[in-house]
Amino acid sequence: MASLIPVSDPADPRLADYVRLRDVNLRKSLEAEHGLFVAEGEKVIRRAVGAGFPVRSLLMARRWTGPLADLLDSVDAPAYLVDDATMESITGFQVHRGALASLERLPLPSVDSVLTAARRPAIGEDTAGHAGVPVAHTRPPQRVLVLEDLVDHANVGSIYRCAAALGIDAIILSPRCADPLYRRSVKVSMGAVFAIPYARMTNWHDDLGRLRAAGFTLLALTPDQTATPIEKASMGDRVALMLGSEGDGLSSHWLDEADEPVCIPMSGDAMSAGVDSLNVTAAAAIACHTLMR
Amino acid sequence: MASLIPVSDPADPRLADYVRLRDVNLRKSLEAEHGLFVAEGEKVIRRAVGAGFPVRSLLMARRWTGPLADLLDSVDAPAYLVDDATMESITGFQVHRGALASLERLPLPSVDSVLTAARRPAIGEDTAGHAGVPVAHTRPPQRVLVLEDLVDHANVGSIYRCAAALGIDAIILSPRCADPLYRRSVKVSMGAVFAIPYARMTNWHDDLGRLRAAGFTLLALTPDQTATPIEKASMGDRVALMLGSEGDGLSSHWLDEADEPVCIPMSGDAMSAGVDSLNVTAAAAIACHTLMR
Repeated sequence: MASLIPVSDPADPRLADYVRLRDVNLRKSLEAEHGLFVAEGEKVIRRAVGAGFPVRSLLMARRWTGPLADLLDSVDAPAYLVDDATMESITGFQVHRGALASLERLPLPSVDSVLTAARRPAIGEDTAGHAGVPVAHTRPPQRVLVLEDLVDHANVGSIYRCAAALGIDAIILSPRCADPLYRRSVKVSMGAVFAIPYARMTNWHDDLGRLRAAGFTLLALTPDQTATPIEKASMGDRVALMLGSEGDGLSSHWLDEADEPVCIPMSGDAMSAGVDSLNVTAAAAIACHTLMR
Repeated sequence: MASLIPVSDPADPRLADYVRLRDVNLRKSLEAEHGLFVAEGEKVIRRAVGAGFPVRSLLMARRWTGPLADLLDSVDAPAYLVDDATMESITGFQVHRGALASLERLPLPSVDSVLTAARRPAIGEDTAGHAGVPVAHTRPPQRVLVLEDLVDHANVGSIYRCAAALGIDAIILSPRCADPLYRRSVKVSMGAVFAIPYARMTNWHDDLGRLRAAGFTLLALTPDQTATPIEKASMGDRVALMLGSEGDGLSSHWLDEADEPVCIPMSGDAMSAGVDSLNVTAAAAIACHTLMR
């Protein structure tokens, strides 16, 4: 059961996990050093706890102790109660959702284990199914996204949400891709970052080979309209779709490594009117939908 | 040719078009009263001017007079030069893109005229084509989006960008749908709001009838998984796809008016893991791509 501890001093060291949540550089080093991440809002906190991440602490306005009463009963961590002004002073912004949790990161699985393991129900997934029938996932992943060096946390969160909703089996991140457990990624994903298995490559140059070794066809999504339209690409049993960074798209090395470049067909009118391209989240949504058909 | 006028007082009344750009309520009434909108950043300003919107004034840091020299030569309006601190003090935020323009709104066409007119090249579209061959659009719109009561300006902008890139012919807005010419819509759309013809309904209850009278099949996009998967919907010559608001989706009245409800098939695993649905921009991207296949 959580202890409810009123705090009024924004500089109280017990609240150090929550300082300056919009300061990306500070948060990166602070979260890496302490192995933590922050979940924001009732729904996302519930999903994080349900996914098995140990709770370090909670921070909330007192009005949230009611709606979160069952969760407070079930976790063994301090819940710091603050007023809205103190909350804003600590975090550096107005926390509209009124409740935050600091949770421990768990070790990520390796790329190989994500690609080859028969998928078990994701941690926290409802193992009983809706009709009380256990849900078993006994096949290894068939449809995978590979994200190269995305920099925007909201984009990463949005892609996780979309991939999870459409049934993509797993996500593989390049070594430098933005962190799915950064607060804003978690929030935009609506907690989908807890629902979809993922791993981070350690070797940008060579690790696409691990996907090929696991039997995946590598499709590289590119705005280049001379590439194969994605809906006409040959989809074998195991397909990995590679998505590049917001500005530059996929690196030439990754494009070279792909089995086939694919594109989303664009309107000729639009291209002459200077509407350059889709943003990466729209492209990812279309690609995931096409992959799952 | 623009006159370059240095200004140092943030309260200078000549800068009134640019006050508190993030104050949505203020901006709504100010922009309606004066019939203006604001474009942000070099690329978007160029597209707005190219689309034929008369320039009321420009506001920029002096460093932008170089990159925008040709545009400043061609427009007959004052260009106010300010330093970054003054810019921030007027607008209420740090304008990373460093240049703003205030432009006059033009009267929107009626729903009927957008639906039935043979589409001419959008204002400002390159009428010479890439190979110097004039581009003629002689067919009326065949694929249309209808947006009901979206509230988020970024979502509206994102949907315009996506619709323009994929070749959707026109967009029809419900009477209360968020404004595509609001600064943030314009910015997120990358200027696509100038490239795609659109109109706003005046009668929420009856105006879907105008689409049907123009020969459109009305498809209603819904998260309801018992609806027809969108890729299996019967696509006649003229299809209008209806998208609902961020929280509640389409109203029951509009759902009732549709010829067919359609859905984007979701993963059963995701639904049991509580990943509810796609956000409206991801759904719109998938729907536009499917509509254009």
